[in-house]
Order: sequence, then C-alpha cells, then structure tokens
Amino acid sequence: MGRVYLDHNATVPLRQAARDAMIAAMDVAGNPSSVHAEGRAAKAVVERARMQVSDALGASGADIVFTSSATEAAALACAGRGLKSAAVEHDAVGAWTSCDLPVDAHGLVSVVDPANSTLQLANSETGVVQQLPEGLAVSDMTQAFGKLPMAFSWSGAQMALVSAHKLGGPKGIGALVLRQGLDVEPRIKGGGQEMGRRSGTENVIGIAGFGAATAAAAQDLADGVWDRVAELRNILEKAIEVSAKNTIFVGNESNRLPNTSCFATPGWKGETQVMAMDLAGFAVSAGSACSSGKVKASKTVAAMGFDESVATSTLRVSLGPDTTEEQILRFADAWLKAERKFHAKAA
Amino acid sequence: MGRVYLDHNATVPLRQAARDAMIAAMDVAGNPSSVHAEGRAAKAVVERARMQVSDALGASGADIVFTSSATEAAALACAGRGLKSAAVEHDAVGAWTSCDLPVDAHGLVSVVDPANSTLQLANSETGVVQQLPEGLAVSDMTQAFGKLPMAFSWSGAQMALVSAHKLGGPKGIGALVLRQGLDVEPRIKGGGQEMGRRSGTENVIGIAGFGAATAAAAQDLADGVWDRVAELRNILEKAIEVSAKNTIFVGNESNRLPNTSCFATPGWKGETQVMAMDLAGFAVSAGSACSSGKVKASKTVAAMGFDESVATSTLRVSLGPDTTEEQILRFADAWLKAERKFHAKAA
Repeated sequence: MGRVYLDHNATVPLRQAARDAMIAAMDVAGNPSSVHAEGRAAKAVVERARMQVSDALGASGADIVFTSSATEAAALACAGRGLKSAAVEHDAVGAWTSCDLPVDAHGLVSVVDPANSTLQLANSETGVVQQLPEGLAVSDMTQAFGKLPMAFSWSGAQMALVSAHKLGGPKGIGALVLRQGLDVEPRIKGGGQEMGRRSGTENVIGIAGFGAATAAAAQDLADGVWDRVAELRNILEKAIEVSAKNTIFVGNESNRLPNTSCFATPGWKGETQVMAMDLAGFAVSAGSACSSGKVKASKTVAAMGFDESVATSTLRVSLGPDTTEEQILRFADAWLKAERKFHAKAA
Repeated sequence: MGRVYLDHNATVPLRQAARDAMIAAMDVAGNPSSVHAEGRAAKAVVERARMQVSDALGASGADIVFTSSATEAAALACAGRGLKSAAVEHDAVGAWTSCDLPVDAHGLVSVVDPANSTLQLANSETGVVQQLPEGLAVSDMTQAFGKLPMAFSWSGAQMALVSAHKLGGPKGIGALVLRQGLDVEPRIKGGGQEMGRRSGTENVIGIAGFGAATAAAAQDLADGVWDRVAELRNILEKAIEVSAKNTIFVGNESNRLPNTSCFATPGWKGETQVMAMDLAGFAVSAGSACSSGKVKASKTVAAMGFDESVATSTLRVSLGPDTTEEQILRFADAWLKAERKFHAKAA
C-alpha cells in the first residue's frame, strides 16, 4: 500500500494540467520584456495565465500582480499600513499587522474597521471560513481559492492574496489582486515588470502552471468535486468522534473548507501524532507547515480560547480532490490505533 | 531557415539538464517545511540544488539564500544601506544605490570605498568585466556567473547576486550569496524559510532547475565552450568592422564577457535595429531587456562618455553556448544589409 497524502493545506501535488502547461512553457525561450518575437511569445504565456487566474478568481477588471508567493503578496499589500488583524492569520500577514482582533470560540473574527483591517477568507488549520466585511482592506484568500465558489469582485475586499501551490500549481508563484485604481508601494524595484509594482524577470514557467492550475481547479469546483471531498471529511470525523472520546474538533460548528479537519487530543502533542502517522504511511500536519519544521502551539486554536493542552495537541488532516474513501478509512483506522496506544501509555 | 537567438544576456533557453531536473521535481509533492516524508523529500531537492549553486559559484562556506530573482536579491542586499554605485549597474541595483561612481571610456568603474559600494562583475550591455576591490559590499554577478571562471570566495565581495535564467536555468529564481556571519533584513516575512531571511514556500521546481543549470554551466566552462563562443563573437565584430565604417564598438578594449558585443551606429536607433533584425529572423537587443519593452538611451553607454547619438544607437548581440558560426555569419550578413539600407536612406 502506497503512502497517503492528507496535507493538502500545506501544499498540493502538481495537477496534470499545470505540469503540461509548464513543460510547454519550457520551450518558450524569450524574456517577456524583450520586444522581439521570442520575447513577445514569453509575454503571451504570462498574459494568458493572468487571464486564467483572473477568470478563476472572478476578478474581472482587477489587476493581478504575479509575485513569488502569497507571502510576498502579503508584504506588498500589508507592510507599513498599520492594518489590524486577528491571530488566526498566517504569519505572512501577521508579520505586518496587529494580530489582536477578537476571535470567538468558533474561529470567527470581528472586524470593526474594515478599511484598515485584513481578514483571511479561510483558515489553513481549521478551515473556518469568514464572512468578509464590505470595504475590507486585504484578504488572504490562499486557502479558499480553488476550494470554495468565490469571486474576488463580490468579496468586499480591496486586495487579495493567492498562491498557486495550494490549488495544484507549482510552489513559488502567487499573486496580489488589486481592485482597479488601487496601487501598492513596490518592494522589489528594477526593470519595472508587473506595471512597476514588482520588478524581476517573470517566472514564466511557474506562471504558466499557475494559470493552468486555476483553470483546472475552477473546473473541479464546477464539477462538484469538493462536495464529495466534504463527505469524506465528514466520514473521517464521524469515525474519530465515535471512538476517540477525548478528542475535540476545532471549528467544526462553523462554515468550513470542505477538505479540512482539525482535531485536538489533549496531552498528545500534535508533533508526536504527525511523526506516528508519518511512520504509518500518512502525511498530515500539526499547525501551519510554513515554519521550517518547527511546531509550536497553534496560534489559531489558542486565539479561539482553547488552552495550551489543546493548542499543542491539534492535528490537521486536509484532503485533496483525488482523496479516496479507502484512504480516509485507512487513515482513521491507523490514527485510532495510535490514539488507543497513547491513552494506554498515559493510563 | 529557423530563427537565430542572439539575446542570451536577456535570457537563455532552458538547458536540458535544468528541464530534466524540473520535470523530476514535479513529482515531489511535499512542502519543504513539512516534517513528514513528503516534506523531507522536497527539502532534499532544495538543499541539493543549494549545494550545486554553491559549488558552481565557488562559494563554499557562504550562505545561499534562494530568491525569486537577482532583482529581489538586489533589494535584500542593497535597500536602506546608502551604497555607492555607478550608472552601469542594472536598475535592480541602481534603484537602491547612488549611481554616481566614475566610469571611464572603457566602462571601468573606480570604487573608492568598497565597504560601502556595489559593483557588478560584468555588464549586461557591453560585457565589460570589472576588477572587484577587496571588501566590496555587494557585487551583481548575474551576467558573469556561468560565463567566466570565478569563485565568490575569492572575489573580494561580501555579498553577491545571481540569477538562474542567465545561465540556462528557469526564469523566476535567483539567489543572494552571503559571506559567513553576514545577515540581511528580511523584506518578505512569514514562515521563516531560508533561515528567516526570505519567507514563502520555496520554488522547489525552479530551484531544482537552477541547481542543475549551474552544474551544467560549470561543466561547459570547464570544457572551454566559451573560448569558442569568444571566437565567434570576434568573427562577428571583424565582419562588421571591415564593412560598417561608422559603427563604434563599445567596451571592446576592456576585458569582456566572451559572448557579448555592443556596437553603436550613430543615428540608427537601437530599437529600429532590433525590429529590423527581428523581421529578418534574429533576436537581439538594444540596451537592457528588463524595462518592459521600453528602450531608452543606454545609461551604461552614456556613463562611458558617449553622446546621446551613440547611446541611443547601440545594439547588443549576446551569444550562447550553442551559437554556431553559420548563425553568426548569417546575422552579420543581414545586419550589414540593413546597415547599408539605413545609410542609403540617410544619404
């Protein structure tokens, strides 16, 4: 039996459509800034992908600025603006914002001053989906994009951050989305690419993959793939719920991403669970995957009012469009075995 | 007859070794920050490439920080430091530095205060190679890396900027090189990747291509590929010199990159030449390719003391490791035809 990847909120295996587009783009030799035929061909690849991302995002009329990651887009959108945020935000946003907006027990954030605040559309650890207030300055849509029907144009947000690798595109490419007429202070200057907002020769191959991945992800959404994924997630939670009586589901009474389950087994460290599951053949996660291997108490879970014994004991299982019921049942079985072992040892 | 690409200083077609490494990396599903097997496999790809880049650069012991471009590396290395520079630097460096150091008629820059200055190793337009002073703060080695035998460790520079796509790696990936013990203020914060110097999920596929391209470029260098390229460049210049009496070669009395020729035909706009050559089937460039298609007077050529009629009339022809003598002769023939036509019209 092969390994089972259930860490799609950390990153998603490359979609076939993205792979094909990237391999095709490898033959495009020019620099998009060059005026000759080879340069124009490279520029066409970039602009085609820009349209694909815009279409999938429902961002007609908005500007799509390609960046190296949603993290870079967060710096462009948030740095130096004194924006308010809640502790549930990704560190890429938290690094530039206040992290002190109130969060309730269901993971929902109260925004008082939308024009000076940032709020994620969905949380990477719990999957909790926020209702964005009209006129919101910035929204991190990284986890929601491709998993929820959405349109930037109707979201109420002025700017959004997205990433390719969370929906089956390559790692290392993201975008900042700007409502028409808005601008940002460039943080990387030079050749004036991306309308001067973000210089540096474009990641043509990565951008091609991003565009193709967004189109494929939009098709999946339209095909109802995530409804099936939500059913599998619910099967998983039911299996755990009936057997693991000490396990707490985090955020499961809120509107959530269809693929995400976050559950805490107090006293059993999330990191230990991840390693036990890894040995058993399953890739899952404790908290956010972005901290270079370090796993600390989950800021998100702590902000929801859970104590440290819960916040250090969460496991995140995040399904993908190709996850099967057999995989989910196998995981539930393996995890419950490990859980019984943990409680036997602890007793 | 197919088109002839002679714009390798703008960007280089993807090397086969880079393509192979990138396609292999497409199967690596994990996030390098994840602790499970899939994450560790992705991290291994990144670290292997880091060693390849370090080896090719002769940067043993130095830190390689992967960035999205040399342009981003320039911002990391230069922003907020008040460094002195000359007008021959790329705009990515010029944007953060003084651009007022003296340049002589051969393109050589006088650095008085190395610890507070930045100096490129080779110029993208003229190919002129600088002698770097010991203790230099920052050097843009983008154009030299892969074309000249060099070692960062022996260069005298404290930090260096390099880019993958100038030596046959993919566009959208570069690196900042730091002598051991040095550090920079991060400009993109969040997950703490790249030892906290540059957050955001790593461009695993691009990094794999960068590593493989540097190894292949180092092999080319060792095999003497560029000696042959220099001979072709000299054949081109000789052919032009004997027939086009008004044409001036820029920087050709200096030590130059083996692949670069920059020549001005006063009164005949560089942009017009590029378009004429493009129609004739040749990709060449006027000035730097990084300005989103805009072509202005060359700052580099103007800084060398040439007047505007020269600085607006330069053409850059930059050869690659696979350029053939037949291609060069064909180009010389087509360019000389166009040049005669220009002079006939002007007369």
